[in-house]
Amino acid sequence: MLDPIYFDNAATTRIDERVIESMLPYWTTHYGNPSSIHALGRVARKAIEQSRKTVAQLIGASSAEIFFTSCGTEASNMLLHGAVRDLGVLHFISSPIEHHCVLHTLQHLHKQYPAVEVHNVDVLRNGHIDWIHLEQILDSLPLDVPKLVSLMHVNNEIGSLLDIERLARLCQAYRAYFHTDTVQSLGFYPIDVQKTPISFLMGSAHKFHGPKGIGFLYMNAKNPIHSLLYGGSQERNLRAGTENVANIVGLAKALQLAHEEMTQHRAHISSLKHYLMTELCDLEGVYVNGDAVDSHYKILNLSFPLLPSTELLLLQLDIHGVCASGGSACSSGVDVGSHVISALQKQDDSVNIRFSFSKYNTLAECEVVIARIKEIMRL
Amino acid sequence: MLDPIYFDNAATTRIDERVIESMLPYWTTHYGNPSSIHALGRVARKAIEQSRKTVAQLIGASSAEIFFTSCGTEASNMLLHGAVRDLGVLHFISSPIEHHCVLHTLQHLHKQYPAVEVHNVDVLRNGHIDWIHLEQILDSLPLDVPKLVSLMHVNNEIGSLLDIERLARLCQAYRAYFHTDTVQSLGFYPIDVQKTPISFLMGSAHKFHGPKGIGFLYMNAKNPIHSLLYGGSQERNLRAGTENVANIVGLAKALQLAHEEMTQHRAHISSLKHYLMTELCDLEGVYVNGDAVDSHYKILNLSFPLLPSTELLLLQLDIHGVCASGGSACSSGVDVGSHVISALQKQDDSVNIRFSFSKYNTLAECEVVIARIKEIMRL
Repeated sequence: MLDPIYFDNAATTRIDERVIESMLPYWTTHYGNPSSIHALGRVARKAIEQSRKTVAQLIGASSAEIFFTSCGTEASNMLLHGAVRDLGVLHFISSPIEHHCVLHTLQHLHKQYPAVEVHNVDVLRNGHIDWIHLEQILDSLPLDVPKLVSLMHVNNEIGSLLDIERLARLCQAYRAYFHTDTVQSLGFYPIDVQKTPISFLMGSAHKFHGPKGIGFLYMNAKNPIHSLLYGGSQERNLRAGTENVANIVGLAKALQLAHEEMTQHRAHISSLKHYLMTELCDLEGVYVNGDAVDSHYKILNLSFPLLPSTELLLLQLDIHGVCASGGSACSSGVDVGSHVISALQKQDDSVNIRFSFSKYNTLAECEVVIARIKEIMRL
Repeated sequence: MLDPIYFDNAATTRIDERVIESMLPYWTTHYGNPSSIHALGRVARKAIEQSRKTVAQLIGASSAEIFFTSCGTEASNMLLHGAVRDLGVLHFISSPIEHHCVLHTLQHLHKQYPAVEVHNVDVLRNGHIDWIHLEQILDSLPLDVPKLVSLMHVNNEIGSLLDIERLARLCQAYRAYFHTDTVQSLGFYPIDVQKTPISFLMGSAHKFHGPKGIGFLYMNAKNPIHSLLYGGSQERNLRAGTENVANIVGLAKALQLAHEEMTQHRAHISSLKHYLMTELCDLEGVYVNGDAVDSHYKILNLSFPLLPSTELLLLQLDIHGVCASGGSACSSGVDVGSHVISALQKQDDSVNIRFSFSKYNTLAECEVVIARIKEIMRL
C-alpha cells in the first residue's frame, strides 16, 4: 500500500510520535497496577493522577471532575444513564444530528424508562440548531423538573459549530443540566469550564493524535452521578476495571500538545480547508453541506452532483489512495445513509463527501486530491 | 527506584516486548478507524478480525462468539446485565469469593430488578466451593426457570482452581447458563469451549503479558445478549465505541504466545511457587491460605502469624523492593480486608500475603524474598 493521503481525521488521527514515547515506559518499566500499594503500583497511580491534573487544567476543571473511560461512547452512556438514575432527569433536549452514542443511548433510555422523554430541537438547513425552537421546548417544561440539554459542540459530519457559551447561559436560565459532546472540538478550540458553565463534556484521545481506547468524562462537581460499570473502586468508584495507564498518559500528553500547538495548527489546517473548499466549490454543482464559515476548521463536507462520474467518487478516491469519508466512520459499515445529511433536508440527489484534515496534511496533498477529483469528474 | 522483585503478577503483568512490537504499527502506519471503508480503515478492520480469529481458535470458539471489550470488568457487566435483560435470568448462583466485577454487578442487578435473586454457594475452608450445597441450590430451583451459574475458574487471591468440566456438565443437567471468570486462568491453562460447554467466559490481556485496557467476552452463539453501551455498530452491534485496534492486536498476540509457551512457563512458574512455599512454610506459624495443591501454579497466598515483626510485613517487603499484595489489587485502595480471606473463616489473627509469579521471575528472586522475610521476622 502506498502512503495514502489521509483526509479522514474526524474518524481518527495518526498518533503523535511524542505521545507514543510518553506511553512506552508504562508498558516496559512502570507496568504496575495503579491499585497496588507497592512501589510499582504507586508509580502507575502517580502517572494517572498527574494525567488527570493535566487534563483538568487544560479545560479549567479540578482533578476531581475528570473520570477516565475507555472511549467517548462510554463517557456518553455513563452520564446519560446517570442523569436518569441519579439526577432524576426525565426530559432530554437533544437534536437529530447528534452522534449515535447520544442518539442511541437516549432511544434506549426512553425504552427502558417510559417516563423519559426526548425532545428534538429542529436543525436548520445550514446544520445549526434552531435556537427559537430550543427556547420553545425549554419554555414548555416546568422550571423545577430536572432536564438535560445534550447538544454537540461540533458536529462530526458537517462540522457545525455550536455557541456553547450562549447555550450554557440559556441552560442556566432554564435550570437545565448541560452536556456537550466535545469529542471533535477538544484540542482544537479552547474550552474553559470556569468561564462556560457546562455540566458534562467528554473527550476521546484518538481524535487529537492520541491512542484509541481512552476517553474521559468531565463532570461538574455539583452533579454527582454514579458508576455504569460495577466492580473495583477505580476512578473513585465511578469506573471499575484496571486503568489503562499507558493510554491515560497518552491522552493527557496528546491533549497537552494539542493545546500548546493549537494556534499554529489551526492556521495551517484552516488554510488547507479553505484551499480545498475554494477550488472544489468552483466545480459545477459542488457546494458545502452545512455552514461553510461557522464550522470546525478541520471538517469540510461537500456535496457533489450525482452523475455517472461521481456516483462512486469515494471509492474512486480510495483507489487513488485518498482516504475520505461518506459520513461518520462509526456508521459507515451500515449503508443507511447519513442521519446528519438527512436532517439538512436537501432537495437534490447528491454525493456527499467529508474531508477532514490534521496537522500532518499538506497543501500538496490538497492539490493531488483536487486533480484526482477533476480527473474522475472528467473536467 | 531499583528494579523491584515483582511477585504481584495476579494484579498485572509486564507486557511482553513481542506484544509491543505487534501493536506499534497500528499507531504509526495502520492508524485507520476500522469502521472506515477506505484502505486505511480496511487494514485496521482486517487486524481486528484476524485477532478475533486467533483468540477464537485458541479457546475452540468461532470468531462470531468473541467480542472485544475495554477490560474483563466490562465483559462481566455486559453479560450479567444481558443475562437479566435478554435471557430472562432471575436466579444467579455465585459465591462470596468471586471478583468484585461479578459480586458488585450482581448486587446492583438485585437492587435494580428486585425479582433477581443471588444464591451464594458456600465456600469451604480450603477455598473450594461446596459442591453439595451447589447441587442443593440447583435442586431448589425449577428446571425451566432461566438461571445462571457464575463461578470463577481461578480465584484471584488464593488461586483455588475450579473443576469447570464438572461444573459445565452439572449446569447442563440443570439447564443453567454457565459463566466462568477466566481472567486469571486464560493463557495459563488450556480452555476449550468445544469440549467444555461454557456459556460465557472473559479474559483480560494485562493478566497474560498483554496491554491494559483490553479484554474480551466469549459468548456461546446460542445465548445472544445485547449491548451494554449504545452508539455505533462496532463489534456487530454489541460494543459501541471506536475499537482499540492496537490493544486488540496486542491481546491476541499475548494470548497466542501464552498458549505456545504454556508448558515451558508452567514448569518454570510452578517450580518457583513450590520453592517459595516449601521454604516459607518451614517457618513457624506460616501456612497456605486455600489449597496448597489444587490451585493456580502462579498464585501463593500465605498466612503469617500476627507478630510485632510481621504486622507491617507487606510494607517492609515493599521497602526492600519486593512487590507483593495483601489481596486483590482492585480493592487494595480500600482498607476493608479481603472478602476472600474472610470467607475462609480462619480462626487465627494473621497477616496474609499473596505472592504471584510470572515467566519473568527467577529462583534467585525467590531466594532474596525468603532471606528478606527471615530478616524481617528476625529468624
